[in-house]
Amino acid sequence: MSISTYTKKILFIGGDLRQIHAINKLADKGSFVSVLGFDGEEKNFFSKKIQILTDFSEAETSYDAIVLPLPYSTDGKNINTPFFKGTISVSEVFENFSTKNRIFAGRCDPKIKAMAESHRIMLVDYLCREELAVRNAIPTAEGAIQIAMSETPFTVHSSRCLVIGNGRIGKILSKMLFGIGGKVTVAARKKGDLAYASAMGYDTVSVYSLDDVIDTFDIIFNTAPSLILDFDLLAKVKKNVLIIDLASKPGGVDFDEARRLGIKVIWALSLPGKVAAETAGDIICSTILNILDEMEVKQ
Amino acid sequence: MSISTYTKKILFIGGDLRQIHAINKLADKGSFVSVLGFDGEEKNFFSKKIQILTDFSEAETSYDAIVLPLPYSTDGKNINTPFFKGTISVSEVFENFSTKNRIFAGRCDPKIKAMAESHRIMLVDYLCREELAVRNAIPTAEGAIQIAMSETPFTVHSSRCLVIGNGRIGKILSKMLFGIGGKVTVAARKKGDLAYASAMGYDTVSVYSLDDVIDTFDIIFNTAPSLILDFDLLAKVKKNVLIIDLASKPGGVDFDEARRLGIKVIWALSLPGKVAAETAGDIICSTILNILDEMEVKQ
Amino acid sequence: MSISTYTKKILFIGGDLRQIHAINKLADKGSFVSVLGFDGEEKNFFSKKIQILTDFSEAETSYDAIVLPLPYSTDGKNINTPFFKGTISVSEVFENFSTKNRIFAGRCDPKIKAMAESHRIMLVDYLCREELAVRNAIPTAEGAIQIAMSETPFTVHSSRCLVIGNGRIGKILSKMLFGIGGKVTVAARKKGDLAYASAMGYDTVSVYSLDDVIDTFDIIFNTAPSLILDFDLLAKVKKNVLIIDLASKPGGVDFDEARRLGIKVIWALSLPGKVAAETAGDIICSTILNILDEMEVKQ
Amino acid sequence: MSISTYTKKILFIGGDLRQIHAINKLADKGSFVSVLGFDGEEKNFFSKKIQILTDFSEAETSYDAIVLPLPYSTDGKNINTPFFKGTISVSEVFENFSTKNRIFAGRCDPKIKAMAESHRIMLVDYLCREELAVRNAIPTAEGAIQIAMSETPFTVHSSRCLVIGNGRIGKILSKMLFGIGGKVTVAARKKGDLAYASAMGYDTVSVYSLDDVIDTFDIIFNTAPSLILDFDLLAKVKKNVLIIDLASKPGGVDFDEARRLGIKVIWALSLPGKVAAETAGDIICSTILNILDEMEVKQ
Repeated sequence: MSISTYTKKILFIGGDLRQIHAINKLADKGSFVSVLGFDGEEKNFFSKKIQILTDFSEAETSYDAIVLPLPYSTDGKNINTPFFKGTISVSEVFENFSTKNRIFAGRCDPKIKAMAESHRIMLVDYLCREELAVRNAIPTAEGAIQIAMSETPFTVHSSRCLVIGNGRIGKILSKMLFGIGGKVTVAARKKGDLAYASAMGYDTVSVYSLDDVIDTFDIIFNTAPSLILDFDLLAKVKKNVLIIDLASKPGGVDFDEARRLGIKVIWALSLPGKVAAETAGDIICSTILNILDEMEVKQ
Repeated sequence: MSISTYTKKILFIGGDLRQIHAINKLADKGSFVSVLGFDGEEKNFFSKKIQILTDFSEAETSYDAIVLPLPYSTDGKNINTPFFKGTISVSEVFENFSTKNRIFAGRCDPKIKAMAESHRIMLVDYLCREELAVRNAIPTAEGAIQIAMSETPFTVHSSRCLVIGNGRIGKILSKMLFGIGGKVTVAARKKGDLAYASAMGYDTVSVYSLDDVIDTFDIIFNTAPSLILDFDLLAKVKKNVLIIDLASKPGGVDFDEARRLGIKVIWALSLPGKVAAETAGDIICSTILNILDEMEVKQ
Repeated sequence: MSISTYTKKILFIGGDLRQIHAINKLADKGSFVSVLGFDGEEKNFFSKKIQILTDFSEAETSYDAIVLPLPYSTDGKNINTPFFKGTISVSEVFENFSTKNRIFAGRCDPKIKAMAESHRIMLVDYLCREELAVRNAIPTAEGAIQIAMSETPFTVHSSRCLVIGNGRIGKILSKMLFGIGGKVTVAARKKGDLAYASAMGYDTVSVYSLDDVIDTFDIIFNTAPSLILDFDLLAKVKKNVLIIDLASKPGGVDFDEARRLGIKVIWALSLPGKVAAETAGDIICSTILNILDEMEVKQ
Repeated sequence: MSISTYTKKILFIGGDLRQIHAINKLADKGSFVSVLGFDGEEKNFFSKKIQILTDFSEAETSYDAIVLPLPYSTDGKNINTPFFKGTISVSEVFENFSTKNRIFAGRCDPKIKAMAESHRIMLVDYLCREELAVRNAIPTAEGAIQIAMSETPFTVHSSRCLVIGNGRIGKILSKMLFGIGGKVTVAARKKGDLAYASAMGYDTVSVYSLDDVIDTFDIIFNTAPSLILDFDLLAKVKKNVLIIDLASKPGGVDFDEARRLGIKVIWALSLPGKVAAETAGDIICSTILNILDEMEVKQ
């Protein structure tokens, strides 16, 4: 529920298919959206309401939000613009806008934070928003299930699935696996997390006791951000197990060891953009609107 | 629970990956299994316990069951042997075995039934077994969901899914879609079926009223064996809908019309063997054991 | 979806709280409803739109439906009128209306059928309607769960529940128990039914093998209409098990034996009217409308 | 999984049925348990392994744990001993044991904390343990559902249920309601909580927007510990709504106002002990063992 009804002016600079969906959705919901950093065929995906800029000179001096991609840059220097032949440097963005502006960016590192501070422009890391993280867990979990379905010669239904970690992705993935009939065991550190998983109807095991049961699983999903599946555990898994690691680098699996043992491991990162760009775009769109609404209320 | 413990002798003639899995599983469970009609690389998939025959002359005169594939033949003349360079005619099978034998075959047509009668050999269509049909609905439903996940840019979670038909596949597919968070509507003819679907927590619509709501769905699954999605309904669906037809020929969708309208339709047949050959093999294995157990009890 | 929009005239004769709810609901939906056989305080439950008759002489000569209770009689002679000081005999009803009328009644026995035939009045047993039976299974299952919750010192969650029978009530009860976290095992005769229950995620056991596992359950629900829990099985159940029998007479439990063994058995009949009269009334209301719609279409 | 195998010595002082179950369970699991503060008929509920003391003089000088009830006292002065004719003062307990002991108590207030400090005896509030709180949410949720079932003339299935708050009880209650077919809406403050509830398949509403939808619910469960259902909201609820307040004092409902408006409100506190004393006892038992295990590891 957007609180205000006045038309928001938003500039998107760069991004992938997710941003294109977010842009169209924002325009559908009544915002006035301009884009910079798109000149490939993908330009055709924009609805007619979108204003496509070719240069900073065509931009206005102030926007409700200037939205950089997710992540804002892959090299720390230029904006992440997969659908653009040229380059746009991060510093260019800050130089072209005054302190009245607010820049939204994904995965802000100290570098962009320092730049924002020196230009005295407000910087918002929209990837840190709890609702975005929770909602992104949905396409992540579905993507993981899709991989499990296509990479095994058996059904997820009735197969013994281990979900390591009980955070956002762990919780939603467990529910979905259970919902299609998987036999779900949740591994976690905290007794409270295990009690919660048990309340949801799953079997549980302490991470410290994985040793005793690791050989019983057909599919293992890791969502914990630390190395759990080390040499000792990998040495005990079923021969034809499938391991899907959803944890961002460094991941939760000893990949070299797994390769040596001939265990199939898939390191699946950034699933939302890959398996459900439209849903991912919806999530970005509504998160940006939420942030703008809250800023308005505070003012 | 197999009632008898005596070692069964079974001969498999031809078949695909599912049969290979079923064969290995039967051997694991203690049966003595021979195979005929496999000479490609796939022979390596057999466990060591399996006796691989190259000719009828190597076969015994009598088995507890002689198992033909599923379907037993694709041309009505020769056994369905995808992993065999030569051919084995259906009549050869009957000619090589006496009346003491029982032939198990999938999708028996009048032709093979007549042949069985003239040779006075008992013929069992194991594809007709209720437990096989129900259990096959699981990989079918998972396969359909896998297709839905990979062919749409949005998540199944939160998307509006229509399941036409409330038979075995319809029931299990609805449950799985619901279990991963799809918004499920079931369409059926009978008021009792609609009441049951509603009891399960789904929205419902009479097949006769699809007209009013067909434009609200993101994914449409057809499981009914008659033409439901005709010109009139196809003309009204969402532009970017995905239709997955799970009904065997002639299917439940007017494909020509759909193509003309630019609607994406996937006709997904024989999913169990394609997406989960191991599970499909397990199902064949236990169905054969069930039939043999029941025959023993009756004797 | 009612097909016609013309105002239906309906006369209800007798009934309990469920009928009162059905009556009010039908009036809300636009029918013109008269009632006979209510003179206690319960008359106050009727909405103002209801016409309360005191005598057959006040009735019209023809109605779209004359609705008798569920069951129509408890003694085979008089209409079942718990909220009426007087009595109305079944024959009186038939004598007061011409052949143009249709009488709806619950649990029709040969007696009332003969009466209807001799008066050449159409008789409809609305208790036989599949959608009513399915929908009634919902309050029945909830009532059973409510009993289980209040009669045990432990939670249904995590307790081992056996559901005998996989008909309408068995299916819906299993789903609900599972939905609140019970560990559900379904016992059935047919392999197809067991396969279906297994597909839904429950453990399964053949009725013929109950012997081996009956001592593992905390709560046993019987929905099968034949004597399953006989002396042999009762002798093996857990000492503090709770057995809830939902099967109509003669029930599925050897009650005398259970009493002798000190096993707690609750024979729970007619739950819909007892635990959810309003829901039961809704079901009756929409079933009557469904029947009238179908009759109209046929004409 | 208890880490150590040495026999623990535990003394329970006072408590209700839950403590009796916990005591028997601990003895079953191999602990040596003595009790003080039980002299009614309930003494018969103890298994034979339990040593029943009549006086502090019979106690040993040191135990692995001395367990007070939950809450430890209802008047701040004497131990909560519902099954004891006499009284045992809290100070007596501390005076009778040396600093080597550890006292476990539920709902520790500053008074008992000060006493523990002055006697230099370690005090553990086992009610604060996350796993106990999570697991207690299960009987609480079931108790709430049992109340909803018995206090409404309609089924929970299909009824519109509002769950205010998305903490432990909110999460588990929502899942159970959904699992038996309720139409669940979750109200919460934080966008992340709403996103999570939506991921689980429920409808959601911001607590700040309850105003717009409060009139659509059949049953309202409050789990939030602050006054949400105030005059303004109560004035808008359905006339025959049922409100069940699960929040501890002061509760989340303006009770006076509700009474004035004739709205049915049930303030349901301490459900675990009331509806599932055995389960509640199990939870206490395993929580105590968890704490003792952790203490051992640390030593």
